[in-house]
Amino acid sequence: MDDITIFFPNPEVKGEIKDPVLIEGLPGIGHIGKLVAEHMIGELKALKIATIHSLYFPPQVLIEENGVVRLVHNEIFHYSSPNGSILFLVGDYQSTSNEGHYLLADAYLNLAKELGVKRIYTLGGFGVGKMIEEPRVLAAVNNVDLLEEVLASGAEFEKGVPGGGIIGAAGLLLGLGAMRGIEGICLMGETSGYIVDPKSASSLLRVLSGLLKIEVDSANLEERAIEMEQLIERLIEGEKPQSDEELRYIG
Amino acid sequence: MDDITIFFPNPEVKGEIKDPVLIEGLPGIGHIGKLVAEHMIGELKALKIATIHSLYFPPQVLIEENGVVRLVHNEIFHYSSPNGSILFLVGDYQSTSNEGHYLLADAYLNLAKELGVKRIYTLGGFGVGKMIEEPRVLAAVNNVDLLEEVLASGAEFEKGVPGGGIIGAAGLLLGLGAMRGIEGICLMGETSGYIVDPKSASSLLRVLSGLLKIEVDSANLEERAIEMEQLIERLIEGEKPQSDEELRYIG
Amino acid sequence: MDDITIFFPNPEVKGEIKDPVLIEGLPGIGHIGKLVAEHMIGELKALKIATIHSLYFPPQVLIEENGVVRLVHNEIFHYSSPNGSILFLVGDYQSTSNEGHYLLADAYLNLAKELGVKRIYTLGGFGVGKMIEEPRVLAAVNNVDLLEEVLASGAEFEKGVPGGGIIGAAGLLLGLGAMRGIEGICLMGETSGYIVDPKSASSLLRVLSGLLKIEVDSANLEERAIEMEQLIERLIEGEKPQSDEELRYIG
Amino acid sequence: MDDITIFFPNPEVKGEIKDPVLIEGLPGIGHIGKLVAEHMIGELKALKIATIHSLYFPPQVLIEENGVVRLVHNEIFHYSSPNGSILFLVGDYQSTSNEGHYLLADAYLNLAKELGVKRIYTLGGFGVGKMIEEPRVLAAVNNVDLLEEVLASGAEFEKGVPGGGIIGAAGLLLGLGAMRGIEGICLMGETSGYIVDPKSASSLLRVLSGLLKIEVDSANLEERAIEMEQLIERLIEGEKPQSDEELRYIG
Repeated sequence: MDDITIFFPNPEVKGEIKDPVLIEGLPGIGHIGKLVAEHMIGELKALKIATIHSLYFPPQVLIEENGVVRLVHNEIFHYSSPNGSILFLVGDYQSTSNEGHYLLADAYLNLAKELGVKRIYTLGGFGVGKMIEEPRVLAAVNNVDLLEEVLASGAEFEKGVPGGGIIGAAGLLLGLGAMRGIEGICLMGETSGYIVDPKSASSLLRVLSGLLKIEVDSANLEERAIEMEQLIERLIEGEKPQSDEELRYIG
Repeated sequence: MDDITIFFPNPEVKGEIKDPVLIEGLPGIGHIGKLVAEHMIGELKALKIATIHSLYFPPQVLIEENGVVRLVHNEIFHYSSPNGSILFLVGDYQSTSNEGHYLLADAYLNLAKELGVKRIYTLGGFGVGKMIEEPRVLAAVNNVDLLEEVLASGAEFEKGVPGGGIIGAAGLLLGLGAMRGIEGICLMGETSGYIVDPKSASSLLRVLSGLLKIEVDSANLEERAIEMEQLIERLIEGEKPQSDEELRYIG
Repeated sequence: MDDITIFFPNPEVKGEIKDPVLIEGLPGIGHIGKLVAEHMIGELKALKIATIHSLYFPPQVLIEENGVVRLVHNEIFHYSSPNGSILFLVGDYQSTSNEGHYLLADAYLNLAKELGVKRIYTLGGFGVGKMIEEPRVLAAVNNVDLLEEVLASGAEFEKGVPGGGIIGAAGLLLGLGAMRGIEGICLMGETSGYIVDPKSASSLLRVLSGLLKIEVDSANLEERAIEMEQLIERLIEGEKPQSDEELRYIG
Repeated sequence: MDDITIFFPNPEVKGEIKDPVLIEGLPGIGHIGKLVAEHMIGELKALKIATIHSLYFPPQVLIEENGVVRLVHNEIFHYSSPNGSILFLVGDYQSTSNEGHYLLADAYLNLAKELGVKRIYTLGGFGVGKMIEEPRVLAAVNNVDLLEEVLASGAEFEKGVPGGGIIGAAGLLLGLGAMRGIEGICLMGETSGYIVDPKSASSLLRVLSGLLKIEVDSANLEERAIEMEQLIERLIEGEKPQSDEELRYIG
């Protein structure tokens, strides 16, 4: 088997991709990136066009609602916006090994080159260790010319933050992307780091929509953010969560 | 040396394999799969036809009763039932690395293809963290068409259970198998997760025998299950196990 | 992608390298080597000539002051001294895996051979578990003929110290270098092991300057050593550090 | 660089090797194997004929008494006994990874085949978790025909002991060796597992000398065993060790 397999069940779909940008929303801190990317896929009715399997993912299958298993994977979705194609990279896991992170990012960039991607947005969370009332959206870029546009979108830069840099796909797609001439912008939602955080995701979505110049209804995310706040208040007051569904919010 | 070696001391035996199914019973939670597969091998007097060595197994030899060592390995046994061949994949260990899990599963599927295997049963345990009076047998499949047959056999589906999916060979043989057109059914015996569990194994054997349409005497397993219950009762009452043999039951 | 990439943006610079020595100052105990090498690069205004990326480094980008990310990397700087070229090997990280340490050291020695390096200095710290008033500089060599010169420089040998040998690039460049006929001297500054230690670095710089027969102003390092001592005194007296800048000294 | 390098500085020495056996005494439980093999090398004045380096060893150099570093390594020594050559495999470390254990054992067996080795003795310790007055020597073989000879030598078999089998080179050289038709005998000295154990080593040496039909003066090992017992008695009585040399005995 190949170490990494990117499978397009219908390869002709590649021909429909025009002037694409790529949005990476793989699992990470607060699942911010995952929340935003999956919310957008749902709202925009983006179509799945490719599945990625790799021995750098955990050796695991997940069981779908109907009892049918599927290998853990990453996926690519496609949405044709009036301003060009938007590709989404989402999935269950990132690499389990350091080397695998590099090799997967490299494979994703090979594909981005093939599909003509000029810009990558990577989405993540920035853990601050406490609950945040008004989560900011921090940004980093892989090309100094992108700064002005990103600042205008409502994202902020803070010198030396996050101090540890950006780990995993959100970082490598920018770092390795720069070497191949692909613009990269990382948006990081401020979050406690303790919970799945739809509120921070909602802030991030606002910034990203502005950059993409598209409208995405964020009602669903905002509703989840309100539910989450209510859940946390009840937890603070010593009440038990009312359902398993609620418990799933806690990271 | 090759990373994985599958050795048939008598390759002609491959010619005797007719319409085979493959049953995987490698070590896992509660050793349910291992108990069932090894019990069946013993009861059916299945013959060992191949040995697998790999540098993905632990770097270790075991000492047999006569003082002779052997490398840790996996093995394949063959039984000719009136309904076709039954192959068993059993052994000491699974892979020690994530990547090795994928590569071993891939090697096993290459062999399954070569031998004409149309269906794989993988056997495992499903840990629930408490002792179970009436262990259920949960199932997952790699093809929606298998659902009806599996439900009719007495196995159950529970939406989203196990939540963590299926890890290791029991999962990958289904997930990777689907891509090669090999049907896969995973049967998981409900078990505490704390002990080697012949009672759960016995339930699983009943379901599997039905699916295979063969009779397998389960007296031996049921006897071990009763011994196990007595051992646990004594432990709860504060008595010491009476022998080393007993202690070996405790996971 | 290659496992290790050494990139010279301007390859002609190789022609300007004359009779080079190589100084390795990658991160390690007390960051002694890193402090010395980076101090020398600053004082001597050495020029960056190459960047090294590798999947043996952590899968991470760092964010520079202007918000632009860069992959974690190692770098090579060049300074033309009257006695010949001095090359510096510095960077963010060493390998994350054992095998990667060997492969990176091997790649660095291939480059050293190509550039005509006859001698390598590797710089490190030697942790003694307590604060040291007058930190010594211990040495080890990869060729017995180097002993006399090193002793004359003010470095010391202590039989069997450090008992655990030298781990990582500082050790491997000497050990693997000997096999390729490249002289190697490892200088280790005595240090507590608990803090970034500019005082020990300052002692090491004195010895190294002597060996290189060049003058390097050490005022900056000595100033940082005094600040560090004051910071530690305040910490001992129970005062809080006055700034984040101060906190960064603590390892 | 190659993953594993076996270097004979003087390859002609291979021509002097006649009917060799190979004795493996790499580090392990109680350092029994290492003590015995290094004692024999000293007493018999065996000559070093080869050095092994590998990226599966730790990325480390050791500092010899004269301040000169050397890569951690394994070594092969040669002694011409009247009954044929005795080769010793000794060294600083075994592999740091599971896969490396297999690949190193494979490389050693390739060399054994090339040199005409018909039998391998692997030496180890068998930890029992308490101090042993009269340490036994347990054995395991890779060929049932060796049992009688081994029992006659004073070694014992105990059914199912050690239960965990034999890990690392001592096990793999037997397990993989059997597949290449090289006889293998593993001798394991009973030991607490807490200390370097020259007493157990001394018992093992007696058995091994008998099997090899050579005389090896064991006075030195027995003296160290007495010193060790005195050291332990003093420790039990609450006295401090008198020297660093003593402390080094404690595992």
